[in-house]
Amino acid sequence: MTVDSRFIEAAASLEFPFDGDITIGGNYVSLVRDGDVVYVSGQIPRIGTSVVVTGRVGEQVTLAQAQFAAKVCAMRALVLLRRELGTLAQVRQVLRVTIYTQSAVDFTQQSEVADGASELLHFVLGEAGKHTRTSVGVYQLPKNASVELDLVASVSG
Amino acid sequence: MTVDSRFIEAAASLEFPFDGDITIGGNYVSLVRDGDVVYVSGQIPRIGTSVVVTGRVGEQVTLAQAQFAAKVCAMRALVLLRRELGTLAQVRQVLRVTIYTQSAVDFTQQSEVADGASELLHFVLGEAGKHTRTSVGVYQLPKNASVELDLVASVSG
Amino acid sequence: MTVDSRFIEAAASLEFPFDGDITIGGNYVSLVRDGDVVYVSGQIPRIGTSVVVTGRVGEQVTLAQAQFAAKVCAMRALVLLRRELGTLAQVRQVLRVTIYTQSAVDFTQQSEVADGASELLHFVLGEAGKHTRTSVGVYQLPKNASVELDLVASVSG
Repeated sequence: MTVDSRFIEAAASLEFPFDGDITIGGNYVSLVRDGDVVYVSGQIPRIGTSVVVTGRVGEQVTLAQAQFAAKVCAMRALVLLRRELGTLAQVRQVLRVTIYTQSAVDFTQQSEVADGASELLHFVLGEAGKHTRTSVGVYQLPKNASVELDLVASVSG
Repeated sequence: MTVDSRFIEAAASLEFPFDGDITIGGNYVSLVRDGDVVYVSGQIPRIGTSVVVTGRVGEQVTLAQAQFAAKVCAMRALVLLRRELGTLAQVRQVLRVTIYTQSAVDFTQQSEVADGASELLHFVLGEAGKHTRTSVGVYQLPKNASVELDLVASVSG
Repeated sequence: MTVDSRFIEAAASLEFPFDGDITIGGNYVSLVRDGDVVYVSGQIPRIGTSVVVTGRVGEQVTLAQAQFAAKVCAMRALVLLRRELGTLAQVRQVLRVTIYTQSAVDFTQQSEVADGASELLHFVLGEAGKHTRTSVGVYQLPKNASVELDLVASVSG
């Protein structure tokens, strides 16, 4: 597996297409900082107003498409971190990533789906992007998203 | 969606009917405090000895009933926090809420279910109740509960 | 339920058979320490190169087998903690354990499965092993594992 070229470009510039559109309504927020620890809400593979990968992995969605979805989720989390911190250089360590894959009955490659996100985080953040990880399969996700990802990170400054 | 009047009353008095009955057996606990951070165990919508909302949402359970279930879970978490802290005024910030919805095969409104909990937390705690959130759909929950919720919060004092 | 004798021995000697084999490839790690808090990646019931309990609980897998699986996951987490800390005496408190059970459609005893892990943690660590817990049922887990467990702990030294 290799990092999709559009992510390399996005990581380089950090001008990701959905940079301006991560807004949520209601009574919760996308990111909370508590001292040196930052929590990021569950991200689905949304670009603009569309969820770009939907359906059960292993059924309507291939492993490669799900890995792409995981990368989009991870990039959204990075965009939120950069917005909060000014620069991703202030990410000291990604502590925990949890990746939920909407899975067909007999699909067992949730770890391989999660590899998409892990690769992206390591690629963009280097050693600071190495994280602990939990990958599980679920039967439904909000808005029929194929993947959802949340994370906790420690930050400096 | 509006906050159910019985919750407004409960929040006002914080004399919730199940205040005295949150006990668990075995080798785990409902709440752990580590410095300024408090972890609350997964809560299901139990009042007294009954789980009051059971079954798959989108099948035997409506969205409105599931939102109610999510509020009961959130209120249980608040009761545990108040018991630990003496007063909810010591809750500095709810950091993370994870909400699991037992979902029918084609149910995708897990975020809307979670809104029930988010609304309650914000209503009771104000700005301190704004949290990051992860909403997922699962196929089974303990005791056939329709919703389960856990949280992490920072506290003062 | 009682602790399986092989775990008592393993806990006594902490020479668990899989001590040397917890390695992962790729861009994530098994454990991250951030100050006094340690995150452990999701563990499945693997011994050596085999996942020793696979399939849906309540279907191909009994409750007793799933409890055994939960203990293996918990023991793996302990092995990782000991490797990081030198000794488990440095575990101040297990803060959060999340236990995912791959569940048959009508299986609702996820808490009873999780009891296997909670019992083991309490048995080995004593009061420091008492934790908050979230138990959920999911429809698929990586490598068809019956149980997956992750945890967060506070440590000293």
